[in-house]
Amino acid sequence: MTDMPDQPTRVVVDLGDRSYPIDIGSGVIQDTDRLRSTVTSQQVLIVSNELVAAHHSAPLLSAFSDRQTHLTLLPEGEQHKNLAAVDRIVDDLISNAFDRQCTLIALGGGVVGDITGFAAASYQRGVTFVQVPTTLLAQVDSSVGGKTGVNHARGKNMIGAFHQPQAVFVDLDTLATLPDREFRAGMAEVIKYGLGLDSAFLDWIDAHLEALLARDQAALTHAVATSCRIKAGVVAADEREAGQRALLNLGHTFGHAIETHTGYSSWLHGEAIAAGMCLAARLAEREGLIDSALRARTEQLMTRTGLPTEPPHNLDADTFIALMARDKKARLGEIRLVLPTGPGKSVTTSDYSQKNMVQLIDKA
Amino acid sequence: MTDMPDQPTRVVVDLGDRSYPIDIGSGVIQDTDRLRSTVTSQQVLIVSNELVAAHHSAPLLSAFSDRQTHLTLLPEGEQHKNLAAVDRIVDDLISNAFDRQCTLIALGGGVVGDITGFAAASYQRGVTFVQVPTTLLAQVDSSVGGKTGVNHARGKNMIGAFHQPQAVFVDLDTLATLPDREFRAGMAEVIKYGLGLDSAFLDWIDAHLEALLARDQAALTHAVATSCRIKAGVVAADEREAGQRALLNLGHTFGHAIETHTGYSSWLHGEAIAAGMCLAARLAEREGLIDSALRARTEQLMTRTGLPTEPPHNLDADTFIALMARDKKARLGEIRLVLPTGPGKSVTTSDYSQKNMVQLIDKA
Repeated sequence: MTDMPDQPTRVVVDLGDRSYPIDIGSGVIQDTDRLRSTVTSQQVLIVSNELVAAHHSAPLLSAFSDRQTHLTLLPEGEQHKNLAAVDRIVDDLISNAFDRQCTLIALGGGVVGDITGFAAASYQRGVTFVQVPTTLLAQVDSSVGGKTGVNHARGKNMIGAFHQPQAVFVDLDTLATLPDREFRAGMAEVIKYGLGLDSAFLDWIDAHLEALLARDQAALTHAVATSCRIKAGVVAADEREAGQRALLNLGHTFGHAIETHTGYSSWLHGEAIAAGMCLAARLAEREGLIDSALRARTEQLMTRTGLPTEPPHNLDADTFIALMARDKKARLGEIRLVLPTGPGKSVTTSDYSQKNMVQLIDKA
Repeated sequence: MTDMPDQPTRVVVDLGDRSYPIDIGSGVIQDTDRLRSTVTSQQVLIVSNELVAAHHSAPLLSAFSDRQTHLTLLPEGEQHKNLAAVDRIVDDLISNAFDRQCTLIALGGGVVGDITGFAAASYQRGVTFVQVPTTLLAQVDSSVGGKTGVNHARGKNMIGAFHQPQAVFVDLDTLATLPDREFRAGMAEVIKYGLGLDSAFLDWIDAHLEALLARDQAALTHAVATSCRIKAGVVAADEREAGQRALLNLGHTFGHAIETHTGYSSWLHGEAIAAGMCLAARLAEREGLIDSALRARTEQLMTRTGLPTEPPHNLDADTFIALMARDKKARLGEIRLVLPTGPGKSVTTSDYSQKNMVQLIDKA
């Protein structure tokens, strides 16, 4: 195989002197020159987990073989996204005498990226980090935009920092080894961009869903690049979520409550927000914000993708609402939700009937 | 007593739209209007420890009696400045449904201020906080400048964030209940400003040391305000310690090694940096940077204040140097030190003889 891979697609997150590129394509992490010209630190710590490292750490370790490198392996799963994981990374950093000029590389899914980013934000009050997302969810969402953090036993992503990466390397080849369930969960975030923010992309997803689920390379490239472009635009306009950025959380307030209730273990994040988007669509329909066709289209997209459309049956309305009140968008206990208002359109609002909300959940 | 307290002295830390006032004087935290016009959040969490809260929490709780307030008490001491303390604050914040618009108030010494500041930096990726320092050390140093963080078992202040407070309220009346040993430890930081940055202030300290140790109100006001003014100037010029701000760490690289070695328990921070400043002066003398008179003057100031001039006897040179290599100023294992170069003058350097360093510590 001497085929030169195509040049990757570059999306730039425009944040002035903290701007950074997202390079999306096949073989991106095999490109030693690209890695070395971006990461110039003499000390490089790669954070991953066992399975991902077995598949993908070799090209990174080899690209930096003349630097001081260390590989930190974290246990897998959202239930390990906590301060103990940050402590463990810091332990390795100090034990290996990593200084303020070091770079951390997050190699893995959203959990690894969020933990590594927060460790980078906090180690010696801030060091450089690079994202190498290896799941669809991380590639289209969590690796872009600088939201880092860990969960607290009482709530998701409650401890964290805004800390932008120096670069994001999206190697689509890493998706080849991604389990089907995780791939489908990642699709939930792709669908989110279409539903909440871009009706043309929503139509494109509808038309290409089977190609995407078959992991067709051209379809994937378009879906990932478009998702990153939408997210980059929103982040550039509203880095710290004073307004517009909250729209990226369509389905997430419901979804986070499901994840907290189930202990971050049995539901994948993408599955929780898929059910969350269906709940948001149903509430929006009850409130007269959207018609039944868009609600049905939302549910069908999830069903076609193999994603849940309902929350867990043992989650009653009182508990559900109490968990949602802990959301970061909440103000003085008032639950603010992102609700669809049309194809590719959404709004952040607390102007909905509590009765509709309770009935909606009781019925689910 | 109907005496109106004097208007407090105001020092401003000039950081553009993140500028904030330091109000220094007698009765500052009794001034309900001042507190209420600064802290406008409807949810106020006060973090303190049992002893300090018993003396000083009442005026704060009463000033905000029409808001939602909560008092979180942390265990006392540098050995409890860790991620577990942050977890505990976050637990109280979530349990009481505190949202992103809340304010945290740090009521206590440097440990409470550093932990609370980092919790505020990290809770929901950043909320507002106010410093109410009640020890001399916190009033002249740690409450000003936005350095927040906690210790890791392997190194001091290794996990943290730059997060500026909204205001610093320095009520000199709180010093009345401060134990003598802690007061003297705080004096080490006052002396640091004179030795490292301001020869006129150094002369003033020399001339007024007995008045200061007797806690004379006028002398204290001048010492605290001058210290804050020096620190505010340095922080405004170099918030993230790209250069000049490192000079505030005179004695600290030696001192942090002593604190790490002794498990953050038996030595107070100010005591450790007092010994550290003496070591820095001796190394500077060996290197020909200062004359023996300034070295002797440094030691005499510490002795007159009742502070140590020597590190612990069981700390050998190898261990000492290994601990110092973990300092945040270190680069690739090279220990960078702040050394005096004259009265009120200092420099950050790694240009000193290793032999002098080893002999210096072995002799100590």
